[in-house]
Amino acid sequence: MSFQKLDELGHKLESLEHALSILGADEATHMASGGGEKRAEAMSNLAGMYHEQATAPEIADWIADAEKAELTEDGARALREFKRSYTNATCLPTEFVRRRTQATMLSEQLWRDLRAKNDWQGFRPALEGVVKLVREEAQLRADALKLAPYDALMDQYDPGNRVANVAPVFERLKTFLKGFLPEALAAQNRRLTERPLKPFAGPYTVEKQRDLGLAAMAAVGFDFDHGSLSVSHHPFCGGVPSDVRITTRYRTDEFLSSLMGVLHETGHALYEQGLPPEWAHWPLGKARGMGVHESQSLFVEMQLAHTREFWEFAMPLVHQHMGHDAMRGWEVDDVLNRVNHVERGYIRVDADEVTYPLHVILRFELEQDLVNGKLEVADLPEAWDAKMSEYLGLSTLDNPKDGPMQDVHWPGGAFGYFPSYTLGALMAAQQWAALEKAVPTVRDDIRQGNFAPLNDWRRENIWLQGSRWSTPELMERATGEALNADYFIAHLKKRYGA
Amino acid sequence: MSFQKLDELGHKLESLEHALSILGADEATHMASGGGEKRAEAMSNLAGMYHEQATAPEIADWIADAEKAELTEDGARALREFKRSYTNATCLPTEFVRRRTQATMLSEQLWRDLRAKNDWQGFRPALEGVVKLVREEAQLRADALKLAPYDALMDQYDPGNRVANVAPVFERLKTFLKGFLPEALAAQNRRLTERPLKPFAGPYTVEKQRDLGLAAMAAVGFDFDHGSLSVSHHPFCGGVPSDVRITTRYRTDEFLSSLMGVLHETGHALYEQGLPPEWAHWPLGKARGMGVHESQSLFVEMQLAHTREFWEFAMPLVHQHMGHDAMRGWEVDDVLNRVNHVERGYIRVDADEVTYPLHVILRFELEQDLVNGKLEVADLPEAWDAKMSEYLGLSTLDNPKDGPMQDVHWPGGAFGYFPSYTLGALMAAQQWAALEKAVPTVRDDIRQGNFAPLNDWRRENIWLQGSRWSTPELMERATGEALNADYFIAHLKKRYGA
Ligand SMILES: [Zn+2]
Ligand SMILES: [Zn+2]
Repeated sequence: MSFQKLDELGHKLESLEHALSILGADEATHMASGGGEKRAEAMSNLAGMYHEQATAPEIADWIADAEKAELTEDGARALREFKRSYTNATCLPTEFVRRRTQATMLSEQLWRDLRAKNDWQGFRPALEGVVKLVREEAQLRADALKLAPYDALMDQYDPGNRVANVAPVFERLKTFLKGFLPEALAAQNRRLTERPLKPFAGPYTVEKQRDLGLAAMAAVGFDFDHGSLSVSHHPFCGGVPSDVRITTRYRTDEFLSSLMGVLHETGHALYEQGLPPEWAHWPLGKARGMGVHESQSLFVEMQLAHTREFWEFAMPLVHQHMGHDAMRGWEVDDVLNRVNHVERGYIRVDADEVTYPLHVILRFELEQDLVNGKLEVADLPEAWDAKMSEYLGLSTLDNPKDGPMQDVHWPGGAFGYFPSYTLGALMAAQQWAALEKAVPTVRDDIRQGNFAPLNDWRRENIWLQGSRWSTPELMERATGEALNADYFIAHLKKRYGA
Repeated sequence: MSFQKLDELGHKLESLEHALSILGADEATHMASGGGEKRAEAMSNLAGMYHEQATAPEIADWIADAEKAELTEDGARALREFKRSYTNATCLPTEFVRRRTQATMLSEQLWRDLRAKNDWQGFRPALEGVVKLVREEAQLRADALKLAPYDALMDQYDPGNRVANVAPVFERLKTFLKGFLPEALAAQNRRLTERPLKPFAGPYTVEKQRDLGLAAMAAVGFDFDHGSLSVSHHPFCGGVPSDVRITTRYRTDEFLSSLMGVLHETGHALYEQGLPPEWAHWPLGKARGMGVHESQSLFVEMQLAHTREFWEFAMPLVHQHMGHDAMRGWEVDDVLNRVNHVERGYIRVDADEVTYPLHVILRFELEQDLVNGKLEVADLPEAWDAKMSEYLGLSTLDNPKDGPMQDVHWPGGAFGYFPSYTLGALMAAQQWAALEKAVPTVRDDIRQGNFAPLNDWRRENIWLQGSRWSTPELMERATGEALNADYFIAHLKKRYGA
């Protein structure tokens, strides 16, 4: 039966994905320095095998055939998701994929080199080539999916998200933030006058920070039978649901950034560990999308670990694992002042909860125009600068490396991805509000280090849902209403307002 | 051209091998405990894909076609080895390989669990399943290679080795050892009366032992740009030539067993790192066989690191990395008395140079009977006990975990492998004798920590030869004579005799 054939294919694809995921995590954590060339060759060949098997023409027949069969409700959903990923995988001609891969690899290499040299003019032609191909790709995907070009790109990262729904939400958030940011900075000034930032009592050894990180992971529900923590230059959550690899990096002068990074990645890991295991080899059993994934990491990092309740629980944990002198003289408010610090800055990845969405909305607006041909790469520095000046009061004209050259996404051809970060923040706030209605004791639970009720709600409403629903459907089912900015705005007002 | 097609196929197969090797090493070092089931499934599917691609029927045509072409000498050898591995690979149906991989991986996982519980009855059915498959496999291989079943199994591990040649050499060695062991023990008693064993001045921290191990690896030539050292329960050398993963385990009451283990695995690693890189994706570029591999590890461990010359070099290294108190009051003779200690024991991996071959010969004899159907798994504990009593005067009847459950090989389906260990010891002794003729200064070189001349000889005569020759041919070319027990027996007499 055709459904059975798809099921068998799923197992093979899952095994290739398993290999690619573990090889990828291994490369960043344990590979010898001279092993890179052979590793790249191996991963490229395995990815080729994956693509070949995932796009075989007979799969179209199996899908068509299976659509005629009697299926369970989940079976029908699984089939729909399989079809979606088959369409996405087959809508680009092989020849085009080769051209695009070549162009983005070259442009990424150039970017690494020229960003360090702050050389926009040298980099521009490569980015122009990528944008040209991305426009072509967007049109190919749009034709296959019957969507507008930018929607078709976004749909790869969070199925169901459309500019028509996202843009108004972002517009409302932007308007709010432009007014709120000066208020929040003023309120912060007043708080810091009353309670100046306490100095760190480091150095903090890597061993003790690791112990603390492991204890925090265990507390919030990380399953060490199915995952581990190690070190890499760029922190990530990788591996496979049965063995999730998260990483962090340590600095010895303070310990909060590593701890918060570990908790962020733990949020991603909990999602992976909580996916429905019986569908692990089907697209249905995979995480829904990048925005939903980020909602899970930001839920743990921002909704949980940046709160007073969490730190009432966590302070004794720090004392236990780092010694009582680690936070000499600190109270919970001192931790909150550190982790909830707001500051206008050039760099997205260094931004805080209040300014981060402005970085994302800027990119969301610009990349739509780039894809739709309303903006050319040559005009990007000015366009970027205008928005940075308007949203954050900062000019980047003379400093492209901290302007449009700061992210790897565009050089790598990833357009339509940026909105996921802020959609994740909005979803996390909205999920928290729904959770608090469903579990009214949740703040007390956290104070007592009892994360089970909270995780039970998330497991049922998010994790175990896998990819049964589009991103907007998933949110509506979990929270009872469509994605909106209200909860995130309320959250920011409460945390950062006057 | 057909040779070119084989070359391209080689790259794909190398990539799958790369994935399997790294996943295998990862499983033993960094995998989460609950990741085993999915890992087994992934590796089984990848092995299936490897098998499918390596056994495609058109390869037979490519080989036949390439045989008609003008080839370089190496090209012709490469083709011959390709054909050999194609024959070995095609004699097992894909479906059989998948069944066997799954059975042995599960049986290995069971073994890990039940060995600890000393539960032979619980484990027996799994081993019976494996033995049934191994008999099937031996017959399939025998038919394809026109060899006897057990020879066909052995040929996978050391091409060219036959019971007809190995058995007489082992017989001679067994006869010698049964007489020599009591002599050696008596001689040791006399030595230990004059110079009692010095106590260790531990505890020795894992960190310091690791530092010492790394220093010793570097000294004897390990290339850290292409490999690393980590920890696993069962020490091994894995990974790929561009990234060799060796492991050790530590105890804190003494440091010599870990150091010697590290040097043993370093011997394996040097072979892998020294293989001809231009042929890495061809069978020709791979290590010749397991016996030759073991000769390289035993060369470093036994011919090098158990000698007076080595310890004249190594004592200062220990002081440097473990502190001067680590070997308080020890002289080189005290180290040698420790590392060359002979003792009758149950466990092969803990055995010394004199008793080890008896453990191997026991397994060589039993596994021939298991494969040929003269012995059933149910009767294994008694058969094992009878030989242990005869060769080593020890009974294992009430302690299966230290009897037939002690090794991973049989649970993993590796029959025909055990002889390699002792063949390796014989080859290492014979290689040392040839090396000493070629490089008369070698003992002085070692005293001075200069391992280059010694490694140069091995690189040229063993490592860079890859799989150009059968195991017996390789030995004859390197040492000028056929493999025999003379050099090893002379070596034992010199080191352990009266
Ligand atoms: Zn994240
Ligand atoms: Zn070995």
